[in-house]
Amino acid sequence: MSRRVLLGIDFGGTKVALATASADDVDRPLRKVRLPTRGDEGAQQVLRRSLDAAAELAGRSGTLQAVGVSTFGVIRGETVRLAPTVPGWEGLELPRLLREEFGDTPVAIDNDVNAAAAAELRWGALRGVGTGLYLNLGTGLAAALVVDGRVAPGAHGAAGEIGYLLGEPGDLAFSEGHAPLEEIISGHALARQGAALLGRPVSAASLFEAGDDPAVRALLDRAVAALAMAVANVCVVLDPERVVVGGGLMGASHHIMPRLTAEIRRAVPFPPEITAARFVDDAPLFGALALALTASGRPVREDASRPGGA
Amino acid sequence: MSRRVLLGIDFGGTKVALATASADDVDRPLRKVRLPTRGDEGAQQVLRRSLDAAAELAGRSGTLQAVGVSTFGVIRGETVRLAPTVPGWEGLELPRLLREEFGDTPVAIDNDVNAAAAAELRWGALRGVGTGLYLNLGTGLAAALVVDGRVAPGAHGAAGEIGYLLGEPGDLAFSEGHAPLEEIISGHALARQGAALLGRPVSAASLFEAGDDPAVRALLDRAVAALAMAVANVCVVLDPERVVVGGGLMGASHHIMPRLTAEIRRAVPFPPEITAARFVDDAPLFGALALALTASGRPVREDASRPGGA
Repeated sequence: MSRRVLLGIDFGGTKVALATASADDVDRPLRKVRLPTRGDEGAQQVLRRSLDAAAELAGRSGTLQAVGVSTFGVIRGETVRLAPTVPGWEGLELPRLLREEFGDTPVAIDNDVNAAAAAELRWGALRGVGTGLYLNLGTGLAAALVVDGRVAPGAHGAAGEIGYLLGEPGDLAFSEGHAPLEEIISGHALARQGAALLGRPVSAASLFEAGDDPAVRALLDRAVAALAMAVANVCVVLDPERVVVGGGLMGASHHIMPRLTAEIRRAVPFPPEITAARFVDDAPLFGALALALTASGRPVREDASRPGGA
Repeated sequence: MSRRVLLGIDFGGTKVALATASADDVDRPLRKVRLPTRGDEGAQQVLRRSLDAAAELAGRSGTLQAVGVSTFGVIRGETVRLAPTVPGWEGLELPRLLREEFGDTPVAIDNDVNAAAAAELRWGALRGVGTGLYLNLGTGLAAALVVDGRVAPGAHGAAGEIGYLLGEPGDLAFSEGHAPLEEIISGHALARQGAALLGRPVSAASLFEAGDDPAVRALLDRAVAALAMAVANVCVVLDPERVVVGGGLMGASHHIMPRLTAEIRRAVPFPPEITAARFVDDAPLFGALALALTASGRPVREDASRPGGA
């Protein structure tokens, strides 16, 4: 009899990551593989190549016990929404397609940020937290709400999509094709604006190291101030006990975290603690494995294994 | 054997309202009584007079089955917080004092806005809602979050205290003694600013009827725009299916609700419906009765009685 394994798939805008792991030792995935997304070639080819890779990976690892899937966008009922990055991903009936692929094997699916929060809840910086906030500062900007020790998805799967927060009443908004806060503070927005200022391609992380340029400093100051106000406001609304911050911009955490901490202490009646996430690069992939583990029937609060080696 | 009754007590800044009702007919409270709060005389006398009135009311009504209490401020563990209106109420150990008063009778306590949301959940405009928002536009400004069909209190009982939301990064904030949004849009703030503009005492509601004065119109426009942006932003964060609005400012609902609706539709990816609350004047008192009913052991979702006669 072959070994029973969990399969995690993380659909990202630039890569798809897959891993198999034993439920008792998610710490050390059995196998991992990455594919380029090649989003410009459309949703169908991303999905086909990924499911082929999944079948091969699972076949080499054992018998599938459960599958967890994380994706950019949000899951609303039977379709993916808010996912403009890959043509055809918006509106894709991903839950149904996955059920067809995996048959009787339990499948759980959520967006990448909720999945990352699930990993932090199970093994990381949100363990034991009742009301909490997971903040992802990545290429995009989003958060996950934790209520009663679980990710609260909202009525349409879109809770925590803070990239759409308005900064002032006149801001161009979602229905006008904009994501006002994400256009100020996100890896993508900073790289774009930084390149325009410096006349050369620049990553958001390296921009924080170019802070002696007054124009760059003004750009970053405005961006971090907007983020700090938004995060403080989310804390006013939610009243979390802990805020956990992950994502690629955490490479500049020494520029960001003190400002977030200060604004939270200034504005929130009962300021939560704020800490770095445990998972960095592989957060949504470990999130997908966390979803698979939950789908396999193991409650979050009984879990004591420690994945990721951090 | 005397009849078993529920007791509700609502501690408000200007009045304390009490009612007894049968669990099977909360629709028609058996008895009601109101006392002036006389907050300037301090917390102890408010509490003493209220508990005396409660004892008399209960004695006339039957045997106490459960007690529900709503109060201004928030309940953090064993004390009341964020309650500056009545000297001594901040820090009052209300849960313990109520347990001592009522002995073995189950007692449930929450803040007035959460209690009003509990009444809307059980009998009103939030019935059957999984993720929702209750917004109270009263003398003050606050909201209650509904997640998984229940009020989500936050880690310190302060979820939904949106009066503290920042409007821009430089706003004076909670730790500086301010409630930035409540100072722009609330019954108290509008009455104060309106009186300064018009040179005479004016209620917030009547201010909305004096809209032909350009200065008044500018004041109200700014206030409603700030409120609409804040409510839209809370909806972005929470992703509710329904927003229910109550409180005294709903006397001017035709000035407020269209603006809220428009901003929600403009800015929120999946716009929730927005409706008026069922309970108006007595919302926190019916909320206290709803808390008592829950404390007596009756789950919200099994309840089919219809109180309030609205």
